[in-house]
Amino acid sequence: MTRYAIGVDFGSESGRAVLVDIADGTVIAWAVRPYDHGVIDERLPLADQTVELGPDWALQDPDDYLRVLQSTVPEVLRSSGVDPADVIGVGIDFTACTMLPTTAAGTPLCDVPAFRANPHAWVKLWKHHAAQPEADRINAVARSTGQPWLDRYGGKISSEWFFSKALQILDEAPEVYAAADRLIEAADWVCWRLTGVETRNACTAGYKAMWSKRDGFPDADYFAALDPRMRNVIDTKMSREVLPAGRRAGGLSAEAAAWTGLCEGTAVAVANVDAHVAVPAATVIEAGRMVMIMGTSTCHMVLSREEHAVPGMCGFVEDGILPGFFGYEAGQSCVGDHFAWFVENAVPPAYHEEARARGLDIHALLQDKAAAQRVGEFGLLALDWWNGNRSVLVDAAVGGLIIGATLATTPEDIYRALIEATAYGTRVIVETLEAHGVPITDMVACGGLADKSPLIMQIYADVTGRPFRLSASEQTPALGSAMFGAVAAGAATGGHASIEDASRAMARLQDRVFEPIPENAVTYDVLYREYLRLHDYFGRGENDVMKTLRRLRDQASGVRV
Amino acid sequence: MTRYAIGVDFGSESGRAVLVDIADGTVIAWAVRPYDHGVIDERLPLADQTVELGPDWALQDPDDYLRVLQSTVPEVLRSSGVDPADVIGVGIDFTACTMLPTTAAGTPLCDVPAFRANPHAWVKLWKHHAAQPEADRINAVARSTGQPWLDRYGGKISSEWFFSKALQILDEAPEVYAAADRLIEAADWVCWRLTGVETRNACTAGYKAMWSKRDGFPDADYFAALDPRMRNVIDTKMSREVLPAGRRAGGLSAEAAAWTGLCEGTAVAVANVDAHVAVPAATVIEAGRMVMIMGTSTCHMVLSREEHAVPGMCGFVEDGILPGFFGYEAGQSCVGDHFAWFVENAVPPAYHEEARARGLDIHALLQDKAAAQRVGEFGLLALDWWNGNRSVLVDAAVGGLIIGATLATTPEDIYRALIEATAYGTRVIVETLEAHGVPITDMVACGGLADKSPLIMQIYADVTGRPFRLSASEQTPALGSAMFGAVAAGAATGGHASIEDASRAMARLQDRVFEPIPENAVTYDVLYREYLRLHDYFGRGENDVMKTLRRLRDQASGVRV
Repeated sequence: MTRYAIGVDFGSESGRAVLVDIADGTVIAWAVRPYDHGVIDERLPLADQTVELGPDWALQDPDDYLRVLQSTVPEVLRSSGVDPADVIGVGIDFTACTMLPTTAAGTPLCDVPAFRANPHAWVKLWKHHAAQPEADRINAVARSTGQPWLDRYGGKISSEWFFSKALQILDEAPEVYAAADRLIEAADWVCWRLTGVETRNACTAGYKAMWSKRDGFPDADYFAALDPRMRNVIDTKMSREVLPAGRRAGGLSAEAAAWTGLCEGTAVAVANVDAHVAVPAATVIEAGRMVMIMGTSTCHMVLSREEHAVPGMCGFVEDGILPGFFGYEAGQSCVGDHFAWFVENAVPPAYHEEARARGLDIHALLQDKAAAQRVGEFGLLALDWWNGNRSVLVDAAVGGLIIGATLATTPEDIYRALIEATAYGTRVIVETLEAHGVPITDMVACGGLADKSPLIMQIYADVTGRPFRLSASEQTPALGSAMFGAVAAGAATGGHASIEDASRAMARLQDRVFEPIPENAVTYDVLYREYLRLHDYFGRGENDVMKTLRRLRDQASGVRV
Repeated sequence: MTRYAIGVDFGSESGRAVLVDIADGTVIAWAVRPYDHGVIDERLPLADQTVELGPDWALQDPDDYLRVLQSTVPEVLRSSGVDPADVIGVGIDFTACTMLPTTAAGTPLCDVPAFRANPHAWVKLWKHHAAQPEADRINAVARSTGQPWLDRYGGKISSEWFFSKALQILDEAPEVYAAADRLIEAADWVCWRLTGVETRNACTAGYKAMWSKRDGFPDADYFAALDPRMRNVIDTKMSREVLPAGRRAGGLSAEAAAWTGLCEGTAVAVANVDAHVAVPAATVIEAGRMVMIMGTSTCHMVLSREEHAVPGMCGFVEDGILPGFFGYEAGQSCVGDHFAWFVENAVPPAYHEEARARGLDIHALLQDKAAAQRVGEFGLLALDWWNGNRSVLVDAAVGGLIIGATLATTPEDIYRALIEATAYGTRVIVETLEAHGVPITDMVACGGLADKSPLIMQIYADVTGRPFRLSASEQTPALGSAMFGAVAAGAATGGHASIEDASRAMARLQDRVFEPIPENAVTYDVLYREYLRLHDYFGRGENDVMKTLRRLRDQASGVRV
């Protein structure tokens, strides 16, 4: 008898559900729903008043997440015709750190009338970047008090992470902080809505909230040093019980069963992070194979049996990706966003007309033209820092650079230079991991960017000197969540006993392999050395011109500095 | 009785004549004629065969210059109704170094059937850049033999200059070199066509052919060291008699009188260079006021009573601009070209649509948007080296750079950064001159770019900390040539006794003055220091990445290196 699992992937702009066959991972049906309020970055979506947001803010409406469940799950059941009784497990994955304050019952504070007009009562999306002063304080206090956990995060905590955001609430809206019985990842909050049981997942706790399996959270004295009111944040607003991936969080509640059309009691897996859930869904259940989720940004993950402090990583977490492994995560904050910025802001009308005439997407046109070039032929080099550098510099305040332009430089030249720059950025991450004891043998890519561009894959293979394969699924994270749903259901009910079993049964790669072309690799070695020199010169303090430009910009435009 | 002079300005794409009132410089009539063959940079304009040119070639057809005379001078006479007998002087100015080989009678070798299909028999336009290997040899031999004149040219001779081009003819077409009875600037050749008398002008000889009033040309041993066949090039193919600006070259020949409709014997001034002739036409007849001719590139000129070796200048020539002064010249090889490249290659359709809807030129739209920004607000900095750096690095192989880009960077941000970069480049020139004994008090700009953009003028004033004024004439070089024509005619016939007299009578500035805004200047001082650091880091050998990129490009595309 065929059994099914459902995975729901909550992205930045929309949520998508897939219904898959547990035996072999076949996607039977899928559905997407954009968030009604999308990314809230200008003003709160209030009918009765105007509340403007600051320049680096990015919020979401938690009710949008529930509408995704209420819409997409019924849709995949309907379109597939599958009997809800045959769906034995549900898993979800989320952007992170995406967090919110709630009441003890789990009601988001933004749904409490007294706080509805306070931006700090809403969900802070991963790319909310307004907590940089708080991140700076978190880092300064950690360094001055010698916190041992700092090394696990490459020596620097990001403004995107949990306590930066929590501390910003406390700094700017102490009344919201005081009213928040719970501070919780949106992933865990949705899981709570599904099951009626509050759980905390090891992945976000480990990668975003300085938790580790061996040492737990930072101690109360550390939090008190940030702000005395924060001393007991873990015990009063969070939880010390943190569950590993694949564990059953609970059974579907009656209310959630009514929303989704699934059966009450259906196994729900502990929540997870979109990138991390993609690793076993991309067939990777062993050390040394790097998974790259390539979209607007790129997330790099690799497993190792060993613990190593690697400078400039996003973090490494024991059992953070798969049980029994240290999961190392790195990131590039601007990849697809980079190319999107370029086509929107810097491609002239003649190219758009040519693309229309040839029936091509503008990206496809640029890649077609760029693919005709030999490596190095166009004489440009770029630093891929349009949105800062997440790894290995962990610095949001560096900016993009292009060098070598001439009057003969064309749009496809620049486009190709931007692609190459992101490939060099990946190579920096790979080489940094290897230099610190985490070997990388080959690469598996997934995400829209990887699927759409053979040119990008070939450049990445040539630059990194490693073969690239592609995940077979076009919806790798959602498939991964379904896999964890199947594990939560367990082998006894027709699911899987472990995520390894689920991966072997349900995950696939495409046949095509992008092998490095030796002749290209030789030239890219020269270019990479030049990239690395600029990377270190502008990124490691020798020339702080990027910081100076940012400071002048902020002064001129009146940003809080 | 009213007297008139005619000035003819020979540009890169066309020639233009003005007929002006000698008393006050009023332009009575003007006419333009594009060159029939324009810039010849792909193949020779031959009906019977195909002769392709190399990638950096740029030639012209000397007969196009004569057609300008035959067309525009009759037209200004006709449209003004002025009696040719009242036109007492003619002056011409030219791009330089623009040179050609001729017979002893002055027939261009490209008009000799045996040589018509040989590219080296044609006019080499100033921007013919294929003689870089020859320029390298000229510099290497000059350094190794300690040539004293090298310091006058900032320590480096350009591939654009006279002997680089002459040596390329000898290297690649020795039969053309051997057949050339004369090697001559096109300026002097046209003057020869007008008067029947071969003269050589001090301006091109001084700035482009290493001649000086005190020392003459380099000696025969130096030329022999370049190539033994070149030992006697000055005495056999050129002339040691070099005439200063304003001198009468001769009277109009009967043949030229027939071409132009002017009277035989009308005074013709010694030829001159377009940028240099603009100095007195921009009212500048004293030391310390810099004249900037701003077009596709910018030429900077300043007078001084003193002789100083200033590193990285194009050159300084005694009497080269005005008698009694050392004339210092510097240049930026990419200014208007820079902005033209940008709008052609990097401005998206929405901007072009907005420009159309608002009835604006695309440059005007971008400047309108850029003008709304506060200094530093957009966080970008650029190096204006899209076409290399003429002063003070004298290096064609450096490339453009933009730094500080983010996902919020707009086209107007980049456009403004490019404008500012050219202003910083000008400040480097100003400060280098001042540091070596040539003070600059204020600036007079002329040329299309200056006339069209108050934003550019204000940025230049803010960046350089000096007031900017604009020449009143929209055709400053042609006016300057008419002024020299009036001087060649002399005071006795109703002309002027000196170029100073002519300038005081005939030249005007616009009323508007762009004064530095102190608040902007403070921020620009910070940005300029950052520019200067990048300028020196990438331009003076500390990081040769631009050279490496150029080398890889040339290897990949198979250019002669």
